[in-house]
Amino acid sequence: MEKIKTTIGKIETLDKDAMEKAKKRQDFLTKPRESLGVLEDLSIKVAGITGNPMPEIKDKVVITMAADHGVVEEGVSAYPQEVTPQMVYNFLRGSAGINVLARHIGARVVVVDMGVATDIDNSEIVNKKVAYGTKNIVKEPAMARDEGIRSIETGIEVFENLSCVGIVGIGDMGIGNTTPSSAITAAITSKSVGEVTGRGTGIDDERYENKVRVIEKSLEVNNPDPKDPIDVLAKVGGFEIGGMAGVALAAAANRIPVVIDGFISGAAALIAYELEPKMKDFMFASHCSVESGHKVILDHIGLEPLLDLNLRLGEGTGAALGINLIDAGCKILTEMATFESAGVSEKSENQ
Amino acid sequence: MEKIKTTIGKIETLDKDAMEKAKKRQDFLTKPRESLGVLEDLSIKVAGITGNPMPEIKDKVVITMAADHGVVEEGVSAYPQEVTPQMVYNFLRGSAGINVLARHIGARVVVVDMGVATDIDNSEIVNKKVAYGTKNIVKEPAMARDEGIRSIETGIEVFENLSCVGIVGIGDMGIGNTTPSSAITAAITSKSVGEVTGRGTGIDDERYENKVRVIEKSLEVNNPDPKDPIDVLAKVGGFEIGGMAGVALAAAANRIPVVIDGFISGAAALIAYELEPKMKDFMFASHCSVESGHKVILDHIGLEPLLDLNLRLGEGTGAALGINLIDAGCKILTEMATFESAGVSEKSENQ
Repeated sequence: MEKIKTTIGKIETLDKDAMEKAKKRQDFLTKPRESLGVLEDLSIKVAGITGNPMPEIKDKVVITMAADHGVVEEGVSAYPQEVTPQMVYNFLRGSAGINVLARHIGARVVVVDMGVATDIDNSEIVNKKVAYGTKNIVKEPAMARDEGIRSIETGIEVFENLSCVGIVGIGDMGIGNTTPSSAITAAITSKSVGEVTGRGTGIDDERYENKVRVIEKSLEVNNPDPKDPIDVLAKVGGFEIGGMAGVALAAAANRIPVVIDGFISGAAALIAYELEPKMKDFMFASHCSVESGHKVILDHIGLEPLLDLNLRLGEGTGAALGINLIDAGCKILTEMATFESAGVSEKSENQ
Repeated sequence: MEKIKTTIGKIETLDKDAMEKAKKRQDFLTKPRESLGVLEDLSIKVAGITGNPMPEIKDKVVITMAADHGVVEEGVSAYPQEVTPQMVYNFLRGSAGINVLARHIGARVVVVDMGVATDIDNSEIVNKKVAYGTKNIVKEPAMARDEGIRSIETGIEVFENLSCVGIVGIGDMGIGNTTPSSAITAAITSKSVGEVTGRGTGIDDERYENKVRVIEKSLEVNNPDPKDPIDVLAKVGGFEIGGMAGVALAAAANRIPVVIDGFISGAAALIAYELEPKMKDFMFASHCSVESGHKVILDHIGLEPLLDLNLRLGEGTGAALGINLIDAGCKILTEMATFESAGVSEKSENQ
């Protein structure tokens, strides 16, 4: 727990001075004030996070964390568990959705085994396996409390061991992991399970009703304490969710912007936010997932999603697109001419 | 008018076969079906437009067309008319918003003088000036009917003279040009002027009320025929609006995707769509502008905007971001592995 406490202790507030300078520059660029809307806001927030009034987004990284979930034996997912390692190999070959979109935005992908149920035999994987998948949350806690702590601390370590990170997107892979994400969201936000449960990779009505019952039962059986995010994570969460929460905390402690992907990384962001509310200022919501619980999380934290493209893949794919928009906003701030430098007349005085 | 007729005659329907092949491939890529939502749809539409089931977005071009508007003497804009040529020089120096975002997405910017009120002294400009700005639409038609035709045909020529275009974004520059755009929108869609009029570059309440009155008067004085888009363009439009409509028609005739920017390029898209409803299938709406008339246009044509980022700059800036998403969608289609090639298990059979 020491590492988590130290990391949280390093998280400061936004640099208001850098934000004011960035805002002032945006207002003097050759465009009507605020006419680039959210792109301008993004650049000002990055200035506040990094403390640099002229921030450049270099060294983009997407960290995709994989783990398995014992609850799949309840039939909550449309895909068999073997797909988790298969997709991990797909990431390592560079052939999955996240690889394509990371290349598109000029980011590297770091693939981490946080708790896949089988060994991943590949030298490219960052092997941080906490255990071979969680337990079935309908019957018992997903993991021991110290494993919950370890998963967050492992995420912190993963981030700290990276060299050159200018912005980080967090993404997930884990068959069945919308189920713990819904459980976490219901536990922390006090919303009903039905309100925060979607169809994951695409299940029919019957499996959906079963999924809702499974999540309700997992909350009854484990009774997580809504005021203790580590208790929630350990009782109904997952290793990749803890890991992503750790990455987010470590990035914020190092004043590096964190970009949330969809519902599962949103559940990780929720854990991080509950541990330290200042996290809100260091995170960006890349998109609004099809999963209904995702919007509940973003509303709870107070983040507005940048995109709404009916995405529900995970892996960090939406985060990659979000990073690209943040990059665009920072380039507007740093590369555009000012009215003065371009010799362009400003708004007429009676305005 | 001959060139417009010939161009429209070349516009065909989408290639259903290419779309089916693209859709089938999307369904076999290593992700749950349709889990990349709109990105998948974009790639399928591009397949239909280009006739290529594995389309790549190469040779991105943003065409930014500039012109002036006689109606500025009615005080409809927050900026003086001299800003139009000043911004054109800014484009040519590579220092404006569109230059930054075009570089961000790897596109080139083609700057066209369609009717700026002064001469642009720069060898980089594509000089296609139809006249030195339009007339004041409160008093008389913006231009003669044959100038309206010429502005569209000039846009067609501009497109046809470009070599290597894989996708084209259309953008505008012209102080005062939200006023003719609102007038065009009201005339064609029969919405009230108030419903389709926004604050442009940022005017106060008093100027806004004046702007609405000016647009209402322009429609009374000129009485454009809603069934004749060239009449509407000539009576209350602008040279850059006609030019962008021409670019869109020529691109569609050559099966090249067209990306609309904001409200002014939306008005151009509306003219093109009224001339040939098949245009809908060849156009993408990059974003939903702050200008209220933009949504009215997109609803009228039947296009869904990709982004909603409170943009209201124009120049093609939103189009650049839209092109980037379309590019991402096509890369997903062409670069991702299939379940078979990656050895990943598909959905379980009882689903």
